[in-house]
Amino acid sequence: MLAEIITIGDEILIGQIVDTNSAWIAQQLNQIGVKVKQISSISDNKEHILKALKEAEERASLILITGGLGPTKDDITKHTLCEYFNTKLVFNQEVYNNLEKIFSLRGKTVSETNRHQAEVPANCIPIENKLGTAAGMWFERNGKVFISMPGVPYEMKGMMENVLLDKIKSHFTTPTIIHRTILTQGIGESYLADMISEWEEALPSNMKLAYLPSLSMVRLRISASGENEKALEDEVSKQAASLQSIIKEYIFGFETDTLEGVIGNLLLEKKQSLATAESCTGGYIAHLITKVAGCSEYYKGSVIAYSNEIKTMELNVSTADLQQYGAVSREVVEQMAKGVKEKFKTDYAIATSGIAGPTGGSIEKPIGTVWIAIATPTGIVSEKYLFGDNRLGTIQRAALTALHLLQKEIKKT
Amino acid sequence: MLAEIITIGDEILIGQIVDTNSAWIAQQLNQIGVKVKQISSISDNKEHILKALKEAEERASLILITGGLGPTKDDITKHTLCEYFNTKLVFNQEVYNNLEKIFSLRGKTVSETNRHQAEVPANCIPIENKLGTAAGMWFERNGKVFISMPGVPYEMKGMMENVLLDKIKSHFTTPTIIHRTILTQGIGESYLADMISEWEEALPSNMKLAYLPSLSMVRLRISASGENEKALEDEVSKQAASLQSIIKEYIFGFETDTLEGVIGNLLLEKKQSLATAESCTGGYIAHLITKVAGCSEYYKGSVIAYSNEIKTMELNVSTADLQQYGAVSREVVEQMAKGVKEKFKTDYAIATSGIAGPTGGSIEKPIGTVWIAIATPTGIVSEKYLFGDNRLGTIQRAALTALHLLQKEIKKT
Repeated sequence: MLAEIITIGDEILIGQIVDTNSAWIAQQLNQIGVKVKQISSISDNKEHILKALKEAEERASLILITGGLGPTKDDITKHTLCEYFNTKLVFNQEVYNNLEKIFSLRGKTVSETNRHQAEVPANCIPIENKLGTAAGMWFERNGKVFISMPGVPYEMKGMMENVLLDKIKSHFTTPTIIHRTILTQGIGESYLADMISEWEEALPSNMKLAYLPSLSMVRLRISASGENEKALEDEVSKQAASLQSIIKEYIFGFETDTLEGVIGNLLLEKKQSLATAESCTGGYIAHLITKVAGCSEYYKGSVIAYSNEIKTMELNVSTADLQQYGAVSREVVEQMAKGVKEKFKTDYAIATSGIAGPTGGSIEKPIGTVWIAIATPTGIVSEKYLFGDNRLGTIQRAALTALHLLQKEIKKT
Repeated sequence: MLAEIITIGDEILIGQIVDTNSAWIAQQLNQIGVKVKQISSISDNKEHILKALKEAEERASLILITGGLGPTKDDITKHTLCEYFNTKLVFNQEVYNNLEKIFSLRGKTVSETNRHQAEVPANCIPIENKLGTAAGMWFERNGKVFISMPGVPYEMKGMMENVLLDKIKSHFTTPTIIHRTILTQGIGESYLADMISEWEEALPSNMKLAYLPSLSMVRLRISASGENEKALEDEVSKQAASLQSIIKEYIFGFETDTLEGVIGNLLLEKKQSLATAESCTGGYIAHLITKVAGCSEYYKGSVIAYSNEIKTMELNVSTADLQQYGAVSREVVEQMAKGVKEKFKTDYAIATSGIAGPTGGSIEKPIGTVWIAIATPTGIVSEKYLFGDNRLGTIQRAALTALHLLQKEIKKT
């Protein structure tokens, strides 16, 4: 079953606000087996709204509209809906009662401008808005359903959760759709594709794989549709397990996991602790780790050693090695990791040293060169990487790569 | 002149990601006098893409497409564009050279799957992607322009900023629009509006003021449209100067300035240095400072003292004070700032200590309480703030507020 979402309002078209409503609605619909065919953001203009409604009606059975329902005059959605359905606005006592209730809760009475909000198109079923003054509206015509909701996110969400999702489920027969997301790190989209092409080509026709790359990671999402939820779950689990076995070493989590969250859970479980010593990543690793609530249970702190002086003074890095090998070297990054691990008395430590750019590169050590070391309870590992010539990109990639290395080391023990 | 934005990809339609690209593009187009008529998110499906292109072409002169350009097989945008323009894919040496450059920067060679990324529709002008492997494409037909870009936000933004915005401006005749942006920190949108309401009401009819609030700051953008660029520039400068005089103390920069960049320039100019000691902000201040290229000239480093033990051991915070006043107190945060300033021998130091949440609050110190101290060459200042109950929000607000406090102190001397 296909749906479309239309958001009305100039503030999205001039980029003043980001349309978060549509993503939320799409998520909810997906979970009840309704597929969103298109999302359109259009202006507060009668002709444009009429055209968008017509186009959406041609493609989908369910059309959800948000925005354009406030009390001020630039909101013309209701009048346009009347024209679309060839009907007129009528006063609705039920809507008015809700309006009065909302106003009295705020210690106010209904003004003349607001009284108009109790008028709705004659052919609609009004939907109660417990959190605001604009009622929702449910229309049916030729087997298609149109729903109009206010654009204020929490009012719209309240209406969907309290009334509309159930009403949609009972009105339409919807298939079951199941998603499973596997999170990978340390391998590019195309290499991943090459590795799993055989598996992907053998997928049954009711399953699809999507590659969702973002900075330094690729999420793989399996989507399956069918009738029998239990059978579908089993089928997806089987396919996911076989996929996992192919790319095992690159997987760091599932669904909405983050690398820093997964590491936090591992350390909590093992009652182990962590410190960091950052040079080129300049605190970004510490920031990722401390974004996680409860990190003070395992994270002791960091020395951000931007200058060589501090590398020596705080982390016990040898001045001779700094001179002989340079700050961006295996020798120095390993001493940094060891230094902070000993100083902060932790089980693990991460250290980074690199050239984030845009200057400071050389032929032997081009911009983007980063050394990462992980000190563990039993030893130390280090690796050299090349992350390209974008400063912020290198900082972020280096941080995520360091966390991934750490995760692999923790899992080994 | 009207534009439309089409974003391709199932991840938006299933609500897995929020479409932030469109809002950003709309903002940029607005600034060069191009109005966005509609934003559509559609699926990775040939028929759907063809239909959306046709509908958009009927309404607008400029059609921008993002997404659907990766190396894997779920990306069919390029083939569909060929069908739409009745042409075929051809290998492009220039695109391939860029591909090789990007790969070699990452220490890798171009795989067979990636080689296909050097194929583009025969009728397009390829647009260089300095930050990724998928080239942009510029098409012209019957006076209309179509632009296809990758969906990865920083790649798309790089392309727009480096090439496309200028190319759009020179291709179309757009009205002369001048923008002037003033950046404020430390005052909310409504307070600002009250302060400048008289000034705002007296603006001439060809000028508009927009409030662009983002985390912990409000950007004020004056936009003026007209014919004579020189006269317009003068008029805007006059209005901007009068606005600046009203809100002087809240201004930290102009146009695309960042707080960390402004501070960097001040420190470079004065040949002074900076260190940080972070508890609740957990490295985020250090990250902001080290995002700025060339920061090693003035930034020495940081101690992230997440545990009390490290506050005492590394920053010389008195154990007695930690016990008597708690870690989140004026006494402790001032000692942290002094401690790191002395240790790293700098002119300035920032320290933070607070309760980011979601647990750890009390009646006296609710979640969101943050103490910030700035040690200067002549003394120390500290302030207490309440930043609300969102963990990441508190971290980010505290960091920006600390930088703003530092900037005010540096300017005083």
